[in-house]
Formats: sequence, C-alpha cells, structure tokens
Amino acid sequence: MSVLQKTITLDLAESFKKIVGEAYFFTDEATLQDYSKDATETLQFSPQAVLKPATADEISAILKICNQYKIPVTPRGGGTGLSGGALPYLGGIVISTERLNKILHIDERNLQVTTEPGVITEVLQREVAARGLFYPPDPSSKGSCFIGGNIAENSGGPRAVKYGVVKDYVLNLEVVLPTGEIIWTGANVLKNVTGYNLTQLIIGSEGTLGIVTKIVLKLIPLPKYDILMLAPFNDLDKACEAVSVIFRAGCTPSALELMEIDALTIVSQMVGTHAAPVNSSIAAHLLIELDGNNKDVLVGEMEQIAALMEQHGAGDLLLAEDAQQKEELWKLRRRMAEYVKMCGYTIEEDVVVPRAELSRLIKVLKEMGHKHQFKSVAYGHAGDGNLHIRIKKDSVADSYKNPEMQLILRELFQQIKALGGTITGEHGVGLIQKGFMDIMFEERTLQIMRDIKRAFDPNNILNPGKIFD
Amino acid sequence: MSVLQKTITLDLAESFKKIVGEAYFFTDEATLQDYSKDATETLQFSPQAVLKPATADEISAILKICNQYKIPVTPRGGGTGLSGGALPYLGGIVISTERLNKILHIDERNLQVTTEPGVITEVLQREVAARGLFYPPDPSSKGSCFIGGNIAENSGGPRAVKYGVVKDYVLNLEVVLPTGEIIWTGANVLKNVTGYNLTQLIIGSEGTLGIVTKIVLKLIPLPKYDILMLAPFNDLDKACEAVSVIFRAGCTPSALELMEIDALTIVSQMVGTHAAPVNSSIAAHLLIELDGNNKDVLVGEMEQIAALMEQHGAGDLLLAEDAQQKEELWKLRRRMAEYVKMCGYTIEEDVVVPRAELSRLIKVLKEMGHKHQFKSVAYGHAGDGNLHIRIKKDSVADSYKNPEMQLILRELFQQIKALGGTITGEHGVGLIQKGFMDIMFEERTLQIMRDIKRAFDPNNILNPGKIFD
Repeated sequence: MSVLQKTITLDLAESFKKIVGEAYFFTDEATLQDYSKDATETLQFSPQAVLKPATADEISAILKICNQYKIPVTPRGGGTGLSGGALPYLGGIVISTERLNKILHIDERNLQVTTEPGVITEVLQREVAARGLFYPPDPSSKGSCFIGGNIAENSGGPRAVKYGVVKDYVLNLEVVLPTGEIIWTGANVLKNVTGYNLTQLIIGSEGTLGIVTKIVLKLIPLPKYDILMLAPFNDLDKACEAVSVIFRAGCTPSALELMEIDALTIVSQMVGTHAAPVNSSIAAHLLIELDGNNKDVLVGEMEQIAALMEQHGAGDLLLAEDAQQKEELWKLRRRMAEYVKMCGYTIEEDVVVPRAELSRLIKVLKEMGHKHQFKSVAYGHAGDGNLHIRIKKDSVADSYKNPEMQLILRELFQQIKALGGTITGEHGVGLIQKGFMDIMFEERTLQIMRDIKRAFDPNNILNPGKIFD
Repeated sequence: MSVLQKTITLDLAESFKKIVGEAYFFTDEATLQDYSKDATETLQFSPQAVLKPATADEISAILKICNQYKIPVTPRGGGTGLSGGALPYLGGIVISTERLNKILHIDERNLQVTTEPGVITEVLQREVAARGLFYPPDPSSKGSCFIGGNIAENSGGPRAVKYGVVKDYVLNLEVVLPTGEIIWTGANVLKNVTGYNLTQLIIGSEGTLGIVTKIVLKLIPLPKYDILMLAPFNDLDKACEAVSVIFRAGCTPSALELMEIDALTIVSQMVGTHAAPVNSSIAAHLLIELDGNNKDVLVGEMEQIAALMEQHGAGDLLLAEDAQQKEELWKLRRRMAEYVKMCGYTIEEDVVVPRAELSRLIKVLKEMGHKHQFKSVAYGHAGDGNLHIRIKKDSVADSYKNPEMQLILRELFQQIKALGGTITGEHGVGLIQKGFMDIMFEERTLQIMRDIKRAFDPNNILNPGKIFD
C-alpha cells in the first residue's frame, strides 16, 4: 500500500475551494468535531477538512486530486453508522453527501425511483408512499440516515424479514471511483447478468470502493393494511423457539422483533410510556407485524401466529388498537439502541445466526456474561436471526481500545461462527469489527478482498483502514 | 495475461487419473464431442480431456495442477447454457460437476437447503416441495440444468417476476478457487455484511472466478394455490401496455409471460396441442399466473387483472381448468426456445428493458427486422421486461461468426441501452455477448472486472475467454 499524505497544504485547500466553492470547504474546529463522530460507542477521529460538494462532477474532481496527492478521503452520509465506517480514521478529508439530496425521478410506470445519496431514508419512503409505492428497508435511524449510507452498509431494519435488505432493491448505481471516473454499475432493469455484479459489490462495501452519487431503486406496491401485536414470554428461550416456529408454520410476518425485558424497561422509562407491559415475570417480548392487502387474511394469519405463540408459552397478547399505539410500540423498539447505550450498555454487537439457533446464541451470551462478568441485553431482528447485543462491563466504555473486551468478543464470535452465524448482519465491519475478520475468512479470502479494493482504488485513498488493514 | 498450455501431457493425464480415478478421466472422441457443445446456437469447442471429480478436494487437486501448468479449465453443469459459458473455448480440460449430485441437508428448522452443484434444479425443487418448502427460480431447462450452473449464470425463469432470481436465494457458497484453496464466501444467515459480498460476486460470474462445490439456499413456504390464465391480444403493442398496467395497479403475478403468435404457432404445431388458441387475429398471448395461500384472494386478484386486460384490448380469456391444462400451457412456453430454434430462428438474444419500455423494444426490433431483412419472434418474461428475441435470417446460422449479424446486434443493443436496458437478463455473457460488453460498460469498468478476475485467478486458467478477453 502506498503511503498516504495526511496534510492538506494551502494549495490543495485552494484547489478544493475552487471545486466546491468557498462556502462548502470547512476547516473550523466545530465542523471538524461534528464530522469526527458517528453513532458508534465512543470513537472519534478528526479530519483535516470537510468538503460538501453538490454534484458527481465535483466529487470526481476532488477524488482526482486526492488520488494524485494520496490524501485519505472518507465519504459520509447521515453519520448514524454503528461501525465507524464514516470516521476519518487516517485523517485527510471527509466528503459529506448532504448536498446531493434530491429525489431525481419517481418512475411510476416502472416502479422505480432515482435518487441522490443524501436523501434521508424516511423522506424517500414518504415520497414514494404518497404515490402508493413502497421502499421497505427501514433501519432504526431512518429519520436521519441517508439512503447513500444505507447502500454503503447494506442496511436492514425490521422489515427485512419479509422484504429483504437494501441489496434487494438496488438496480443501478452511479459511482465516482477513487481514481475519479464516473461509472454506472448496471442498468435500470429487474434482471441483469451482464458482467460481474458490480452493483452488488458496491452495496455493503462501506464506502471503500467508490462514492455513490445516483441510486436507482426498485419499488413495490405499498401494502394497504398492517397489524401489530406484542407477546410477552416469561422465558427467553421459549421466545426464541416461538420465532422459529412461526416461520416453520409457513407464516411470513413483516416484522418479528425480540426485546429483552431489561432493554425494554430502560427504554419505557426513558420514553415515559406504559405502551408495553414491563414486570418481573416477563423475560422478553416479541413484536410481530403482519402486512398485506386483505384485512381478513391478515387477521386470520395473526390468529394463527397468536395460537402458535400461546402454545409456546406466550402470556397475554397485546394487539395495537390504532395507529398511535402502533407508533408507541415501534418507538420503544426504534429508540432502544440510543437509550440502552445511555444506561451504560455502550458496546454494541450485531450478530446473526440461523434463526433456529437464536436460543443457543442467547445461552452462549449469558454464560459468557456470567464467566466474564458483564451484563448484556439482546434485542432486534429475531425473525432474521439478527440480534443486537449490548454489553455493559464496569470501567469498559468501548470494545475498540479495550484488550480484555476484544478477547471476550473474539470468544463470542467464534461461538457464533460455530452456530453457522457471522459477526455483523447490518451494521458493517468498519473499524469496530475489522479485528475479527480472520474469524470469518481465511487469509486467502481476505487477500482477494484486498485485491478487489486495489482494483478500484490503487492508491488506497478511499476510506482507508476500514474492513481490513 | 499468462500464456495458457493447451496440451495435456501423458504425465498430467496420469496425475488427473490419480485424483479422480481412471473411470472418471475421459479422452475418447465421443465424450469430448458431448462436452464440446451446449444449448447455444451452433457453437462447438472441444476439450482435450473431461474430468468427473466427486468432491471439492478432488477439484482442488485438479485446479492446483492446472494452475501450476497453466491449463485452461472449463467448469460444466448440465450443459444447457445459452451463452457458451460451459464450452472449452481455449481447449484444456472440462470439469463436469455431475458427480457432485447430492442434496446434503434440507434444514426444515431454518428453511434452508445445502446442496452440491450437480443436482438438477427440478429435483431440488421437488425434494423441498415434499416438505412444504419452495425454491422458486425455475429456468425453462429446469428438468436438466444443474443448480450449480444456475448459480454461475444467476438464472431466472418465469417466477422471477414475483420471487426474484437465483441471487436472491443464495446464502453461502463453498468455492474452489482457481489457485486450489477451498473457501466459504459467507455464512448460513439471512443477513450478512461481513466484508465484501463475495457470495454475490460469484453468482453470475459464469464459472470464471471459482468452482462452486456447496450451495446454501434460502427456502420459503410453498404457496398452496395457483391460477393460470391466457389472454390473447390482437396488437403486440397493447399486450406490452397491459403488462405494465398490471403492475402499476399493485398486482404482483407469480409469472407474466409474453408469447408472440409466430412462436406460439410453431410450438403448438410441434407439441401437437390446441391448448392455446392460435389464429390470424391474434398477435400475442400473455400467460399470467398468480399464487398464494388463499384461494378467494387469488380469484379476486385474477378478476382484477382480467378486467385490466380487457380494458387494454385482450380478447377472450382462457382460465386453465385443472393441473393438466396448466401443464399444457406451461409446456408451450417452456419448449418454445427449442422448437423455435428448430424452425430456423437460431439466433437467441436475452435483452431486458424497464418494463414500461417493452413496446418500444418490440417496435425497435420489428423496424430493424424490416431494415435488415430478418424475421424475429419475441417471448419470455415480460413482467420483468426480459424478452427472449429469436432471429432468423437467410443463410445466417449463428451470430457469433457472422460479421453482418454482429453489426445488427450492436445496433439493437445500442437502442436497448438507450431505453435503460441491457444485453442479457439471465443467459449470461459467455462467448455470445462478450463482443458487446463495450456498449454497456466504460473501459475503466471492464478493467475493474478484469482486475477482479485476476484477484481470484492470477493465471487466468478458469473459463478463460468468457465475459471479456
């Protein structure tokens, strides 16, 4: 790898200003601070400058300079990432996509939308919903994350269990390569086997292969109805079993979330709601959503699921009565990460196992907590086998710099691999997980990934130090 | 690129025999003939030897030798490919996966199946269906193609319009690299963002990056009911419009196929059936399937679609009465490629456009036929915007070696690109389309693809000469 240049000379600063305009080139302390953090634990890395270009051509011009002078470039979306992907780990410049914030074309004839990357996910969802169309991926941060960041991380969210993740909706991408060329990866079509699938390679590549500047997404018809139900379990193991049973019975809920009671208690108190029952006899809740176009069919499916859950030990089921109650229940789930973190559960993992191994995953976690003296809460996308695990250990604020926690996580991840699982389902590797990549991949496989990186970015200027060294 | 060695010395032959056993090493003329063709036009390339290993370890040992001596290796599944992907273009050896033909584990707890690549797609579908599970991708050749070949080509089929293509079902792959290492690309989980998505990169890479030896597929619950309907249109343009209208109304059929009348007439005569009406007032039929778990809902949806089609000019609709009639209608569609080819429409293209551009695609095709004096028939996956176009031109048997046809196709593909489309939706690039890759991709993008190839296969031994030179 070539040696990166971390100093932005005055001459370079002038060149950057000429490209983006003086008003969009920042070196003031407050801005550098703002762009040195994301939603990960406690990580902080400061850039030398922040640039806010408005077009792919401007980004291309910036990258050509950075490639020539070997300046590290970190692309940044909404800054809501959970693995440090948008942090300027090796300094250099941050390119924020916040000014590429236009939805360019909602194509109702073809059920597609073309958008710039700086559009907030929820804004995009609302705009297409107004036309009866549906873009399902809905990360918890959907109110502030950017669609471009979602592409970079291949984001999921609760609805992935029925509708899939970001990669299942992307048809075509305009990408500025680290060497400055602007390319399209595919075509605006539903099926495409023309050459290697660069579209899928860019998705989830965490901003290391190129900066996405236009995105063509497939849309589907917006389902007309949904039902939301909360089911308490006095045994975490049984809640996990019930998850598996629902799918084996042929049901496909549009969300199936698990919330361990400690996490739910925290967020209920913080939000100040009694929307969900919280008491000492409950170990966990399952939050189950069904959606579709026929209300009677939905009610029938919900009854089937309710019966299955009761057979597997669920207590009194709570059916959300109206839109407000649905929103309250969803709010508990969506704000869980934030509030649980505030209560000292600062270390967040994002593990995935085959769905039927959920209870074994929880068992491993709790046994390890006992052995290594940490507290943990688990919640998240149980239907996908994807749980967010938050860990609280006295005097340990983050996993990144703590050797003891690194060893604990290594042990946990090895056990998860043995269950057929992996270390991140939707948050990405970034900085947080890169020390564990050797658990999941042979050295030859990692070498292939590095060679792919080199194919796109021969000077290793784009988001260097992420995913692997 | 390194110079490939095309002669298999006696010493090398001995080494290969030691690995696979004498009975599975072939150099007899009949076998070499058999493995020199596939389902493409008229292409033929003979290997020096055919090997039929039984395990990933055997394949690894073979590839290590080939990598050392720079011998071209062409992996082959069922030999049903339509782009020449399995043809030993540069000689060397063919590795057939026909002995890796076991379904290893149907995991009913996790709705997954682990299979070897040499299993026939329809056999896999039947085995999982017996357990109430569904693996949707169903290329027309499903009765003889291998699931491994489907991975290599990212196959589709009629059901892709509702259920997606092969790439939407693959969770994890065991791959033997051209350099001999055996790796897994992912984990057996529904969501995975751990490193670059090598799983998706291998899918559709046409056997150029590695030989897949184990496949973990996601399964879904098998829908209980389906309805099949045939709708005649006296105007091809209106049939295309109706396709688009169905989706804009929020319906998602499980198949929506177009059959131009000339193609249907040929196959009806060859099969000897009157299952579908064929007369001079009809220009094309749409074949529409709906599936789901609630019969009443399906009937309601079919009525909605029927009304839409009548509004858009459909004639008398034919509803399949029973399983036999459904099978007869499907047989017409599935055998179309074979019989249309036998009637002189030897050149097959596999273009895709955004769905609403279908009628413009047909218009371009017919105008070009008039200008360049060729006949054409179109059929296929209209719901995906993916049409198979068969061309018949006097004294032209294949596109591959005919400069005039190459120019005609170039013009066609340029127009398709202008419609937002691409040159292959499910058949792959192989040999047939590689001369047209410059239409879809900039040179820098093709260079990235070549560099990715080099990352996996530094000596360019695996399926050399496919996709790009």
